[in-house]
Amino acid sequence: MTETTRSSALGATGAGDLFQLLRDGLPRTRAELALMTGLARSTVGVRLDALADLGLVGPVADAVSTGGRPPSRVALMPSARVVLAADIGASHARVALTDLMGNELVSHREDLEIALGPDAVLGWMVENVGLLLARLGRASGDLIAIGIGLPGPVQFSTGRPVNPPIMPGWDDFDVPGWVRRHMDVPVFVDNDVNIMALGERSHAWPTIDHFLFVKIATGIGSGIISGGRLQRGAQGIAGDIGHVRIARAAGIPCHCGNTGCLEAIASGPAIASELRRLGVDAPTGRSVVDLVRRGNVDAIQAVRQAGRDLGEVLTSCVNMINPSVIAIGGSMSLAGEHLIAGVREVVYTRSMPLATEHLTIVQSRAGEDAAILGASMLAIHHVLSPEGLDWLASSASAGSSVPV
Amino acid sequence: MTETTRSSALGATGAGDLFQLLRDGLPRTRAELALMTGLARSTVGVRLDALADLGLVGPVADAVSTGGRPPSRVALMPSARVVLAADIGASHARVALTDLMGNELVSHREDLEIALGPDAVLGWMVENVGLLLARLGRASGDLIAIGIGLPGPVQFSTGRPVNPPIMPGWDDFDVPGWVRRHMDVPVFVDNDVNIMALGERSHAWPTIDHFLFVKIATGIGSGIISGGRLQRGAQGIAGDIGHVRIARAAGIPCHCGNTGCLEAIASGPAIASELRRLGVDAPTGRSVVDLVRRGNVDAIQAVRQAGRDLGEVLTSCVNMINPSVIAIGGSMSLAGEHLIAGVREVVYTRSMPLATEHLTIVQSRAGEDAAILGASMLAIHHVLSPEGLDWLASSASAGSSVPV
Repeated sequence: MTETTRSSALGATGAGDLFQLLRDGLPRTRAELALMTGLARSTVGVRLDALADLGLVGPVADAVSTGGRPPSRVALMPSARVVLAADIGASHARVALTDLMGNELVSHREDLEIALGPDAVLGWMVENVGLLLARLGRASGDLIAIGIGLPGPVQFSTGRPVNPPIMPGWDDFDVPGWVRRHMDVPVFVDNDVNIMALGERSHAWPTIDHFLFVKIATGIGSGIISGGRLQRGAQGIAGDIGHVRIARAAGIPCHCGNTGCLEAIASGPAIASELRRLGVDAPTGRSVVDLVRRGNVDAIQAVRQAGRDLGEVLTSCVNMINPSVIAIGGSMSLAGEHLIAGVREVVYTRSMPLATEHLTIVQSRAGEDAAILGASMLAIHHVLSPEGLDWLASSASAGSSVPV
Repeated sequence: MTETTRSSALGATGAGDLFQLLRDGLPRTRAELALMTGLARSTVGVRLDALADLGLVGPVADAVSTGGRPPSRVALMPSARVVLAADIGASHARVALTDLMGNELVSHREDLEIALGPDAVLGWMVENVGLLLARLGRASGDLIAIGIGLPGPVQFSTGRPVNPPIMPGWDDFDVPGWVRRHMDVPVFVDNDVNIMALGERSHAWPTIDHFLFVKIATGIGSGIISGGRLQRGAQGIAGDIGHVRIARAAGIPCHCGNTGCLEAIASGPAIASELRRLGVDAPTGRSVVDLVRRGNVDAIQAVRQAGRDLGEVLTSCVNMINPSVIAIGGSMSLAGEHLIAGVREVVYTRSMPLATEHLTIVQSRAGEDAAILGASMLAIHHVLSPEGLDWLASSASAGSSVPV
């Protein structure tokens, strides 16, 4: 089983097991670390030196003097290195630098069309990383990893987009390869909904192991955390709920080529289109949110109905995944309780009682920060894994390939 | 994250990390194990002694003499201990003893009503374990763990059934507690579909990390393996697809209290009922399978339609979970290709191309052995985990609680 493979790898790697103990931020002595790992004191010393060389751990002063020579304690140094987190949307992009705990240090946002293609968009990112590093007064060598969220399906193991519908020029593009020609650090790429799921969980639900994040905006998708881990599925497209068929959409064409998809009636553009049919001036999904906030009854009813439609599909998801929290984000979630109320109305009626008894359905709490936080967590989680640390330790000289 | 917690625990436990290396069955020297784990030679020696005391590893002779004193190699001893696997159905029960690799050594099956209650059913199980051990000529102390599958929802962490619809007297019953008053070894209890998923994967798809097992019989359910691990969800009821609503079942009452559930039109009894309405003599689901095998056209059409109905729900599952293999088992799957063809017809038409491009949909290969094999794998996986080994090492004297 996978668990077995992983624990073997842990045993076989160098400093990884030690570092996992330090990721909680608590300082420890070498004797404590030797006791906790069963490693020889000399081995602990060698491995701590390797982590210190990477700048990831360092000595901490004892708060209280015990008299005599104080034991030398070491701890994670969250500010020792910085992480680049990028949130690339269909028509905007945001880059940020964070510390090793995911805290945002500095960021920049611009309107940017993904359709300009990978050279333009990634070029913009690389340029801005330089500016952000300069603003922080950090050297480029301080950058330890890069996490990127893209608005389409991504094969996580290679970082390449797979048939992304709204990203001309990006299909099968080697994103990590391109980025690493400019910045030689590990690059992790995933789709935007997966990284928002990671970010939302990290921000608001860190102890929840069965968690569903739903994004409802121009498209509709979800990120699934089961058993404490993000689940990407065999092709990296798990959570694709936008193209599940629902009865009320029967016959309505969807841009995917099928008819009857959830996205064809419950996405931002679909709700706006339905309102225009009723004579309401609603050019975009965002305008629908504005109308709801101004109390427009047609818009409120349309959003509530979209919530019910989404709830129809989430009912199956609840029976299937049995999450304890569903967080609903994306621009349409800014319409607030009207949307969530529609979702709850259907899910609590239709799902099995055992599955809804302890189920919480709420609006996203991380809001627009979910993606940046998630991209940072994605990069930190992988680069500071035992395999990632092995790579870091060997990369300076060898330039080996990035483990994902 | 969960990964981190687990690796910390691995580091902190005694012999677990060493044992994970040996679970592949390959013999290794102490020097090799020290190298692979980074542990001191003396530590390896102490931990191997602990595993040898449990009878789990032992010395193996070298195939080729190298001249001089041969290095002493150790390996997993699959026959050193036995595992009890129990498959308790609605109206049958089967118990088997397996070795530490899951190979069945001896088994016994009887018609037995789950409705007789836990005392009668578990009493039958305990009685038969004694007989099976005697047939093998093994002592009761050779039993290392027990895995039990039950036909209803089970809270895995406690081993207690949760509102099981067809199991009067079992709700919240402490199954492990009852069993351990008779046999003091770790007891792991899960629902039958989850253990069938584990068994089917172990038998036919050991390298597939995204796997869905569907049981279609008196009821309909599924077991989900994502990221290489069985996913139980927050209340242990993940995979409950029998009560997802589908359009063709609109208005048809289901025993769950709702209307329109998949189970209300596609289960064995539902298909039989539909055939009787057409004037066909089909008292049970099993009789439908017989009719199909004899070429009855009404029965073939009804089974194919049930496959389409199941496919309707699996379409959402495929979009959500993105598995690479779906195996369909349970008594109705014995109707063979007619059922599977109906499933494929809908799933390959309706799911996203990216999700179906590499998707295999097949009949279960482990067949009726899936449950016994899965119950054995469930018990072995947990009792031979680092936490389980710690418990084993301390249990003889202390009688501590079972870690799950």
